[in-house]
Amino acid sequence: MTVDLAGTAGHTAPAGEFAALYAQAQRFYAHQMRLLDTHDTGRWADTFAENALLHPPLLPAPVRARAFLAGYVRRGAAHRRLAGGRLDHWVGMLDVRPQADGSLHTRCSALAYLTPAPEGPRALHVYVMQDVLVRSQGEWRITHRRITRDDLA
Amino acid sequence: MTVDLAGTAGHTAPAGEFAALYAQAQRFYAHQMRLLDTHDTGRWADTFAENALLHPPLLPAPVRARAFLAGYVRRGAAHRRLAGGRLDHWVGMLDVRPQADGSLHTRCSALAYLTPAPEGPRALHVYVMQDVLVRSQGEWRITHRRITRDDLA
Amino acid sequence: MTVDLAGTAGHTAPAGEFAALYAQAQRFYAHQMRLLDTHDTGRWADTFAENALLHPPLLPAPVRARAFLAGYVRRGAAHRRLAGGRLDHWVGMLDVRPQADGSLHTRCSALAYLTPAPEGPRALHVYVMQDVLVRSQGEWRITHRRITRDDLA
Repeated sequence: MTVDLAGTAGHTAPAGEFAALYAQAQRFYAHQMRLLDTHDTGRWADTFAENALLHPPLLPAPVRARAFLAGYVRRGAAHRRLAGGRLDHWVGMLDVRPQADGSLHTRCSALAYLTPAPEGPRALHVYVMQDVLVRSQGEWRITHRRITRDDLA
Repeated sequence: MTVDLAGTAGHTAPAGEFAALYAQAQRFYAHQMRLLDTHDTGRWADTFAENALLHPPLLPAPVRARAFLAGYVRRGAAHRRLAGGRLDHWVGMLDVRPQADGSLHTRCSALAYLTPAPEGPRALHVYVMQDVLVRSQGEWRITHRRITRDDLA
Repeated sequence: MTVDLAGTAGHTAPAGEFAALYAQAQRFYAHQMRLLDTHDTGRWADTFAENALLHPPLLPAPVRARAFLAGYVRRGAAHRRLAGGRLDHWVGMLDVRPQADGSLHTRCSALAYLTPAPEGPRALHVYVMQDVLVRSQGEWRITHRRITRDDLA
């Protein structure tokens, strides 16, 4: 599945509804990335639907998001040891397209940076995340995430 | 024309209306900058009103925004060859002041960065964009943009 | 007082109300940081309640926010001379938790960067700000701010 925000205007939500969805999406990303950066993997997993798919930059096809988690954390710890600091993310440039079925198609950028680095925080990569979010029991959860890395595109 | 957000509180919009306008402005900038960075000049031009004015950092006076486009893309390609990478923008620090006439006065920062660079994305400049947005046919369009560069101010 | 957003879901505001509060908080931070960066200390002070407390990274306990201002500006000027450029802030990653008493508990990141630097803007530190905002006379004001610096945590 490909989510191409550029090619689709999405469902036209009323202004008030769009504002509500956009604010919820912004909080979702600020919160989710903080869970990722603090390795709160249990609660991070809970931001993905049970059978959510994740398509990372270097894999040929999507994998199960929750199962991918444990590996990420292990690799992340190794990566941090190599890089010499903590890995943090800064999300921005959010575009949200409400769909007629109630889901959200989103696109945002995530800057991965190292902190502390000897000379202040150091930018490593900018990722683009294209997500499908679905609401269940009052919470948004990702059902599909595609991550691309700008320098590999 | 000068848009001084610091000096004017703007029209006081009801909370719900302000939220709607702020969310729309955020999506507008995320979308517009992506069009710029992918050189989708046709759709980028469409984010400016027909006779919109653009006042870039190094020019003494505003120029026609749409006519300025073709030159920007040509210069941009040359700049990227020199700089050795792709030029991307990250927008944030958005302030929105709804005006009594229905227009929006906005102020935001745009970080221009190079990606890929040998050692990860590299910050080049921070610009400040002060825009006047007007709505026509359901879409926001810029009628006036003044860009200043922090290191020239 | 500690504001732990991770541990508290906060009051569940209706979607429209949450959107309004989130948009107001975003504008608040874009505006407040600009006042800080332009040394508009009078208007910056006014974004804090009269008896607001501020807990900066290197102090053992909170201090009076407004009284701390004059010292910050003096130190800031000296710091800029040493660092060789202007100090600016970029705020993002905002989480907002409306409370039952009408206040807001927020958490956001603030990147402090130097501009101009010889080779473009240079990132110095990422701070995390955890604030309590209270509304009075139509304006949000901070009553408590705790600032942590990522590389000291």
